[in-house]
Amino acid sequence: MTEKTISMEDAVGMFARLPGIGKKSASRIVNHLLKNKKLGLELVNTAKEVILNVVNCSVCGNFTTREPCKLCSDDSRDTSIICVVEEPEDLTAIEQTGIYKGMYHVLMGTLNPLEGVGPEKLRIRELAGRIENGSVAELLIATNPTVEGEATFIYLQNLFSALPVKISRIATGIPMGGSLEYADKYTLTNALKSKKYF
Amino acid sequence: MTEKTISMEDAVGMFARLPGIGKKSASRIVNHLLKNKKLGLELVNTAKEVILNVVNCSVCGNFTTREPCKLCSDDSRDTSIICVVEEPEDLTAIEQTGIYKGMYHVLMGTLNPLEGVGPEKLRIRELAGRIENGSVAELLIATNPTVEGEATFIYLQNLFSALPVKISRIATGIPMGGSLEYADKYTLTNALKSKKYF
Repeated sequence: MTEKTISMEDAVGMFARLPGIGKKSASRIVNHLLKNKKLGLELVNTAKEVILNVVNCSVCGNFTTREPCKLCSDDSRDTSIICVVEEPEDLTAIEQTGIYKGMYHVLMGTLNPLEGVGPEKLRIRELAGRIENGSVAELLIATNPTVEGEATFIYLQNLFSALPVKISRIATGIPMGGSLEYADKYTLTNALKSKKYF
Repeated sequence: MTEKTISMEDAVGMFARLPGIGKKSASRIVNHLLKNKKLGLELVNTAKEVILNVVNCSVCGNFTTREPCKLCSDDSRDTSIICVVEEPEDLTAIEQTGIYKGMYHVLMGTLNPLEGVGPEKLRIRELAGRIENGSVAELLIATNPTVEGEATFIYLQNLFSALPVKISRIATGIPMGGSLEYADKYTLTNALKSKKYF
């Protein structure tokens, strides 16, 4: 057998490009796949099929294998409110609370001028279309409370201020189980400013 | 489009079975692959090719795309000493030191009676064959200093005691940069027993 063009190192290099995977973890993974070739091929084939078949829902933008996605075609959900998130992972996190029953809109990123991400690169035109054509009464902006997430919130707030749609924002504050002692000063400031009366 | 049989959750489940990858990391990875489909397909195809083309070297047992492997067919290496390791990762770790210039033998595991791993499941017969047919003067046993690694060392020591081959073992002791204060008592005991004179 002559030397193949693709080596183990190539595979390790590819896995090391995944989020949260360093060179050492990548090497462990490739060794694991080689020791369990059946599992390895199953993983590779499943991943390939998912990559080839998963598309972005034309309505909300979330990853889906059906069009429109399960959430967008669920008649029992409240179509008067759209929760706007940055990424599909954020949608999943909110769905897991089980408390939100409205619709979603995934922007697929945040405004980030330094990295050349302007409004035209996000799914904002699609969001505007949904508001103009639909019966949307409220936009719940759930972008992350980071510099980029806040900037995106402010941009959307200005953009839709003339439309008859209420804009709301998820609350920031001390996380449940957290402690004031270790909260950063901006979080604590926000938690004080957003105090609730009972 | 109708719903596909393979869903994103299937892919997440497969990735979560890899070593060191939990459900959350697996989900991040799958989302990353879907956001970068080109990278995703490249990774999947590379991994598949590696799984299909990498075999165990018939001499040392290490993963390789050529037969025998690069190390076993390197004429400049010292064939009078064989370093015995548990897994391919251990071989890689030793090679990275650059200090060892002999041959290797990968056992592909350790003796583990509780999990049903007896000597016949390890590459011990192949090792015996190399010693009997070759010009091996020394076996450097570099299994891990764990219960299973030590048991495997003792087994090999007994097995080859009648043969004209010297048996050595990598040193145990305080790791470089470590501190006596935090060393466990067995490590410290071994470090004291193995004291060196200058």
